Amino acid sequence: MVSGEIADANAFFMANALTERGFCVTRVSMVGDQEGQIQDALLQSRDRAEAVIVSGGLGPTSDDLTTPAAAKAFGESLVLHEESLGQIRERFARGGMEMPRSNEKQAVFPASAEIIPNPVGTAPGFCLKSRGKAIFFLPGVPRELQHLFRETVLPRLERERKGNIHYRARTLKIFGLTESAIADRLSGIRAEHFSATLAYLPRYPENHIKIIVQGSDLEEVKRNLAELERVIRGKLEGRVFAVDRETLEEIVGRLLKERQATLAVAESCTGGLVAHRMTNIPGSSEYFERGVVVYSNQAKTELLEVPKELLAELGAVSAPVAEKMAEGMRHLSRATIGLAITGIAGPAGGSADKPVGTVFIALSGPDGTASRRYQFWGDRDQVKMISAQTALEWVRRYFLFNGIAGLRR
Amino acid sequence: MVSGEIADANAFFMANALTERGFCVTRVSMVGDQEGQIQDALLQSRDRAEAVIVSGGLGPTSDDLTTPAAAKAFGESLVLHEESLGQIRERFARGGMEMPRSNEKQAVFPASAEIIPNPVGTAPGFCLKSRGKAIFFLPGVPRELQHLFRETVLPRLERERKGNIHYRARTLKIFGLTESAIADRLSGIRAEHFSATLAYLPRYPENHIKIIVQGSDLEEVKRNLAELERVIRGKLEGRVFAVDRETLEEIVGRLLKERQATLAVAESCTGGLVAHRMTNIPGSSEYFERGVVVYSNQAKTELLEVPKELLAELGAVSAPVAEKMAEGMRHLSRATIGLAITGIAGPAGGSADKPVGTVFIALSGPDGTASRRYQFWGDRDQVKMISAQTALEWVRRYFLFNGIAGLRR
Repeated sequence: MVSGEIADANAFFMANALTERGFCVTRVSMVGDQEGQIQDALLQSRDRAEAVIVSGGLGPTSDDLTTPAAAKAFGESLVLHEESLGQIRERFARGGMEMPRSNEKQAVFPASAEIIPNPVGTAPGFCLKSRGKAIFFLPGVPRELQHLFRETVLPRLERERKGNIHYRARTLKIFGLTESAIADRLSGIRAEHFSATLAYLPRYPENHIKIIVQGSDLEEVKRNLAELERVIRGKLEGRVFAVDRETLEEIVGRLLKERQATLAVAESCTGGLVAHRMTNIPGSSEYFERGVVVYSNQAKTELLEVPKELLAELGAVSAPVAEKMAEGMRHLSRATIGLAITGIAGPAGGSADKPVGTVFIALSGPDGTASRRYQFWGDRDQVKMISAQTALEWVRRYFLFNGIAGLRR
Repeated sequence: MVSGEIADANAFFMANALTERGFCVTRVSMVGDQEGQIQDALLQSRDRAEAVIVSGGLGPTSDDLTTPAAAKAFGESLVLHEESLGQIRERFARGGMEMPRSNEKQAVFPASAEIIPNPVGTAPGFCLKSRGKAIFFLPGVPRELQHLFRETVLPRLERERKGNIHYRARTLKIFGLTESAIADRLSGIRAEHFSATLAYLPRYPENHIKIIVQGSDLEEVKRNLAELERVIRGKLEGRVFAVDRETLEEIVGRLLKERQATLAVAESCTGGLVAHRMTNIPGSSEYFERGVVVYSNQAKTELLEVPKELLAELGAVSAPVAEKMAEGMRHLSRATIGLAITGIAGPAGGSADKPVGTVFIALSGPDGTASRRYQFWGDRDQVKMISAQTALEWVRRYFLFNGIAGLRR
C-alpha cells in the first residue's frame, strides 16, 4: 500500500540530477509495501527503461520488503553476505551499541547481487543485472541515498551511456518577478539557437529557470550555456540572486564576509526564520553577530530600545517601529548592519488598515536607515517565508547597489 | 521527460487520504510532458486498478497535454463545453480581467466526460469511464486539487466502494527511540488480532507509526483502534508526543497555554530554529515571550548575563553556560520558562573533548534549573534539527513529569 508517507524527495533528487546530465527519466513509480506489487513494478520498469533505480525498503523492519521482492522477481535465492554483516555490526559497535537482531536482514541479498557498500548508514545498496539492464537498489534514507547515488550509480550510468553527447545544466534563481513576468521578458529568446531547453520552475517564494544545453562538442556546449546565461541575465536585470545549489543565505553570507561586515537581526513576524536561515551556513558565526525574536512589545523595548510611546501611538507594525528596531539592533550589537522585520503573519491580528500580510522591513547601516511597507499574500507560513526572503534580499541589494541610497532607488 | 521538479505533494496528499480511508493505493506514477507517455500511463493504470486519479496538465499552456492525451487514449473526440467556458470567462470578469485566449482550452473535454466544476480555480476537472472504471482528472494546483478531491472524488469512491468495510487510521509520533528500538519493543504485538496493519515511517528526527484498522462493524473498528493504540503506548512509555497531524510545537504550545505559562528561548547552535518552530503556530504570541540567537560570546554576556569569566574558563559549550543562559533568559524576560541550547553544529569547531554534535540543553523554571549533555550525530542541518527537537521535548516533559525534578529522573 502506498501510504502517502513516501520519501518522494528521493525521486525528486534523482530525477533532477539525472535530467541535468541528459538522461531521460521516463517514469517515476511509487509502490506500496506488498511483495507482489513490488515484483510487478520491478519487472515493468526493467522492460520500459534502460536502467532502473529503486529506493527504500532495505531497512530492518518487517515492512521492508524490497530485497525479497527483487529476489523473487528475478528468480534468485537470498544469501547472507558475511562481510556486510560484519560492517553493520562494527557500525553499531562504534556507537557503543550491540546490533539489534532485526538489522541482520540488511546483510541479506539476492545471490547474484553486487553489493554497494554504504559508508554513511547501516543498509548497503546493491545492483542486479537482468536482461542486460542494471537495476540499482538504494536505501531510502535521503542522506544515504544521495551519497550512494552520487558516488556509485551516477558515475556508472555515465560510463555506460551510449553515444557521445555532452550535457551541461545551470539553474538561475530569481526573486521579485512572477513566473509570467519572467516568461514575458524572455519571450524573444530562441533557446534552440543555443541547442538548449529552458524549464520554468516555481519554487515559492523563488522562481527558478533551468537551462540544459546539449551537443557533441563539449567546448561548444559550455560556450552556448555561458552565452545563453548572459542573455537571460541581461533581460532579468539583477533579479538572479544565485545559481544551481546556492541559496540566498549563502550569497548574503559571502557578501558579508567579503566586506568584513557583520549582521544582527531583529525579527517579529518572521519569528527566527531569518536567523535560522543565516545560521544554516557553516562558518556563519564569523558574520552573524546575533538575532532577537521580539514577539512582545516589552521585548521590543527591552532588547531594541524601541520607545514605548512609539509602540503605543503607531502600533508594533509600522515603519517608524521597524526603523527603530533595526537601529536599536545595530546600536546594541555593534554589528555593521541591523535588519528588522515586523508584520502580521496571520491568521489573526489583521485590520482594515493593516490586513494580514502587512509587513515592514527596515535596514540600518553606517550610512543611514531605510524601511518599506509590503503587502504579502498567503497563509502564516507563506507570509513568514516571503518576509524572510525579502529581508535577506535587502541585505544582498544593500551591497549590490552600494548602501542605503541604492535601497531607496 | 520527468524533470524531477514535480508537484509530488499532490500524490502525497491523495495517497495519504485514500489510505486512511482504507483504499489500497497500488501505484503512484509520475509521467513527463509527452502525449505518448501520458497515454501509455493512462491505459496501464486503468488495467491495473479499479479507479484512477490523474492530476495536473489541465492548464492553459502548451505543455498542458493531459486532456488531448486522455481523448486519444480512450478513443474520444474533443468538444468545447460552453457552460464551462462561460464560467471561466466569468471568473476572469470578476477579477476585472478579460479571459486570455489560451484559457479557452480549459473548457475543452473528451466527448463523454462528466465535468467536475471547479469553484476555486479556472480549470474544471472531469471524469471518464473506461471498461467500467472511473478515471478522474483534476487540476494540479494543490488548493484546487484538494478541494475537488475532498468534495467530489472521495465521496464518489466511498459510495461506489464494494462491500461494507469501515476503516480508521491513527498515526503515533515518537521521539527519542530509534526505528529498530521501536520495532523491538512492539515485536510481541500481533496487529492482526486487532484487524490492523502497522507501518513504520521514519521522519527524521521523529519516528511515526501508522495504525490502520478495518472491519465490517464500525464500533468494533473504533474499539480495536483504541485498544491497539493503548497497547502500543504502553510499550513506548511516554515517547509518543503527538498523534496524526499534530506537531511537537503545537503540543508544547498547548501545554504552555493550559498552564498559563510563557516561554523564552536562548539559542546558540540551533540558530533560531526553536523560535521559528514555536512561532509557526497561530496564536503563539500568547505564550512565546521572546527569543535570542546568541552566536557570539559578547551576545551571551550582553543579552543573557552569562559571566565573561565562565565563558573564558569553560567555553560557550558547557553545562554551566547552558544553565546561565536559561536562567538569564528567564530572569530578563520574566517568562515562566527559560530554555537554552548551546553546542557545536559543525562542520568546524569540534575538538577531542567536545566533538561536532556536542550539545548542552538547559531549562530553567520556577522550581530550579536542569541541564544535560548530548552527543548527536549528523551534519549541521541534522544537529540543528535534533537539538531543536530535543529542546522542545524538554518543555513537554517538564510539564508531563511535574517540573525540574521530573526532568532529572
